[in-house]
Amino acid sequence: MISKKILDLNKNGSAIRAMFEDGKRMAAEFGAENVYDYSLGNPSVEPPAKIREAVYQILEEESPNLVHGYMLNAGYEDVREAIAEKLNASFGTSFSARNILMTVGAAGGLNVAFKTLLNPGDEVITFAPFFGEYRNYVANFDADLVVVNTLPETFQPDLAALAKAITPKTKVMLINNPNNPTGVVYPESVICEIAELLREKEQEFNTSIYLLADEPYRELVYDGVQVPYLTKYYHNTIVGYSYSKSLSLPGERIGYLVLPDFLDDADEILPGAAVANRILGFVNAPSLIQRVVGRCQDATVSVESYNRNRELLYGKLTGYGYSCVKPQGAFYLFVKAPGGDDRAFVAAAKRHRILLVPGSSFGGPGYVRLAYCVDYDMILRSLPGFAKLAEEFGLEGAKSAE
Amino acid sequence: MISKKILDLNKNGSAIRAMFEDGKRMAAEFGAENVYDYSLGNPSVEPPAKIREAVYQILEEESPNLVHGYMLNAGYEDVREAIAEKLNASFGTSFSARNILMTVGAAGGLNVAFKTLLNPGDEVITFAPFFGEYRNYVANFDADLVVVNTLPETFQPDLAALAKAITPKTKVMLINNPNNPTGVVYPESVICEIAELLREKEQEFNTSIYLLADEPYRELVYDGVQVPYLTKYYHNTIVGYSYSKSLSLPGERIGYLVLPDFLDDADEILPGAAVANRILGFVNAPSLIQRVVGRCQDATVSVESYNRNRELLYGKLTGYGYSCVKPQGAFYLFVKAPGGDDRAFVAAAKRHRILLVPGSSFGGPGYVRLAYCVDYDMILRSLPGFAKLAEEFGLEGAKSAE
Repeated sequence: MISKKILDLNKNGSAIRAMFEDGKRMAAEFGAENVYDYSLGNPSVEPPAKIREAVYQILEEESPNLVHGYMLNAGYEDVREAIAEKLNASFGTSFSARNILMTVGAAGGLNVAFKTLLNPGDEVITFAPFFGEYRNYVANFDADLVVVNTLPETFQPDLAALAKAITPKTKVMLINNPNNPTGVVYPESVICEIAELLREKEQEFNTSIYLLADEPYRELVYDGVQVPYLTKYYHNTIVGYSYSKSLSLPGERIGYLVLPDFLDDADEILPGAAVANRILGFVNAPSLIQRVVGRCQDATVSVESYNRNRELLYGKLTGYGYSCVKPQGAFYLFVKAPGGDDRAFVAAAKRHRILLVPGSSFGGPGYVRLAYCVDYDMILRSLPGFAKLAEEFGLEGAKSAE
Repeated sequence: MISKKILDLNKNGSAIRAMFEDGKRMAAEFGAENVYDYSLGNPSVEPPAKIREAVYQILEEESPNLVHGYMLNAGYEDVREAIAEKLNASFGTSFSARNILMTVGAAGGLNVAFKTLLNPGDEVITFAPFFGEYRNYVANFDADLVVVNTLPETFQPDLAALAKAITPKTKVMLINNPNNPTGVVYPESVICEIAELLREKEQEFNTSIYLLADEPYRELVYDGVQVPYLTKYYHNTIVGYSYSKSLSLPGERIGYLVLPDFLDDADEILPGAAVANRILGFVNAPSLIQRVVGRCQDATVSVESYNRNRELLYGKLTGYGYSCVKPQGAFYLFVKAPGGDDRAFVAAAKRHRILLVPGSSFGGPGYVRLAYCVDYDMILRSLPGFAKLAEEFGLEGAKSAE
């Protein structure tokens, strides 16, 4: 028999594929412009023009065997140095090249961090709702994911619940800020409380608890919100970053880990993470695109069009009577499912050719996730469907909205 | 404590890093041109000009959000179709896009295959000497690597030993053809015998044994040698391929798995491998370079300069009295260590500023590996050192060579 884990995942995977196939079938039947796909976090904003320019410059100026060849498993020294300098200038940190490990996206980075830190039976804590892949990444290393609920309505961390969840087996506290799927940003005050709690528990249990910050949405924030840089608040912090969203390069699989010198066991973790990058089969982050991001440290996509989408969709949906925290970051709305059953609501929405993801996939049943990294016009075309759905589910405001 | 596995690997990794640091130190002390580094399999031949042209064309012609965006975890359909067509034209196979899974190099592909196939305690058989990373890849999934010796002098498979090694726990037979580190190619007659043996054992134990062919060196062959395409000889064959050597793109991490429809459990393995690609953190093979190889299916590097290196180095070393199988593929010489102790010989060679890798790293103690993917002139400059070493170790022919 092939891998039991994979056989189990295939069952779940077939639901995702079924949705994907449904979308294709509906697009063929009704026309692609009449299907409103909010299911995927694939950036709709184009990468900055500087990306293409950097590719041209690199291919003109640099040796092909350098650009496409092996380098250290941790990545090109000059690229890592450029990233460290940018972080230091932005956040007042003191990193150097050795603290930066180039990774195959944030997904690669998280797996490298887990491979480096976890022994079987260790516990990784995260707040619900959470990016569903965390469960798989933790399972890759036979560790256990411990899910702590956030506060109702705000999706901010429940610190009392967190305090109870930390045990001598807790090796990692995994935080996703801004959060997928809620769009919530944890403010500095909350970060300080988490840091204080982790320090207390480290002392109580005489353990090291690593705070792993998954930050692919760091630059996608609205209303002038600040996202605290966690290495400044807690010593045992590892940051996982990706350029997937900030530069609209999700297919390129490029990101990095920040591994500070002040980590407990830094002398083992820094070289160990490079070994993990190698033996997990990543070997190194893709080379040309490493060199590209090295030259594009000052570039980010404009969040203006995501913000425009956010304002339109949030305003209209709440007007129709839907209930939703206004997101301060990322490009997701996490909407309370009218009727309370997220899967039933996803099915109802599909009858209006609106594709959503059930909150259950994120440990947040009773909600649905809308990814608004889509064309503005698609949102406009989808609004009558949302209005009718509101009416079907008897939401207040539904009538007045029509 | 951080991961025990990583702590153990750090000890070994520090030997590799020490060698790397030694090389840098020697280059600083004696000048880079006076250090003869045969330790790395980093291609010295430049990628074909078509690679750069394809990058330009793609950036001009295709939408940036397609080129840099997410696609199916298995890769772009059109790229997979182009690869299937090329395989079919080259080897008379009948693959289509669904049989091709784009991977983060061959290392990524092997890990995806293992994740899909292996349960803890399963056995993976390979022939020694072998690429040392196999041990780590198998350990990632808590399976056991079973090493079967090859025949002395020829490094061809010992089929009697293989027959004894196969048990009901054998899930995978892993073959690297052409072989790293020996450069040996297994001919069709040997492949037929292995296939026949695997079929017999599948029947005897009522199991499925998957033949996993690791083929990054397929195109790097000399003297008109043919490398059999294994799916034609054995039904349960999965091929892992990489463009690292054939297109000199090792840093780009681009390759693929071939997953035939006629595999046992193909209905689970094909979707399962895409799931494995996702949850291991690869997500997908890097996107731009996927599109590049899709357009470069007819390109390969010229092996002429590797062949020239091979002839020079093989001819000179055997002239000095060293003993070595003449490689028919890849870009390695696996030379019998004079004195019999590979680590001692590596240390002796370093005193002549020649950097080699001990065969022990490949499960082949008593030998050293030379990667001749280097500048021809470097080989010429290194020859006096090899001659002196031969004399120091009292090899026959050493005198006449001087």
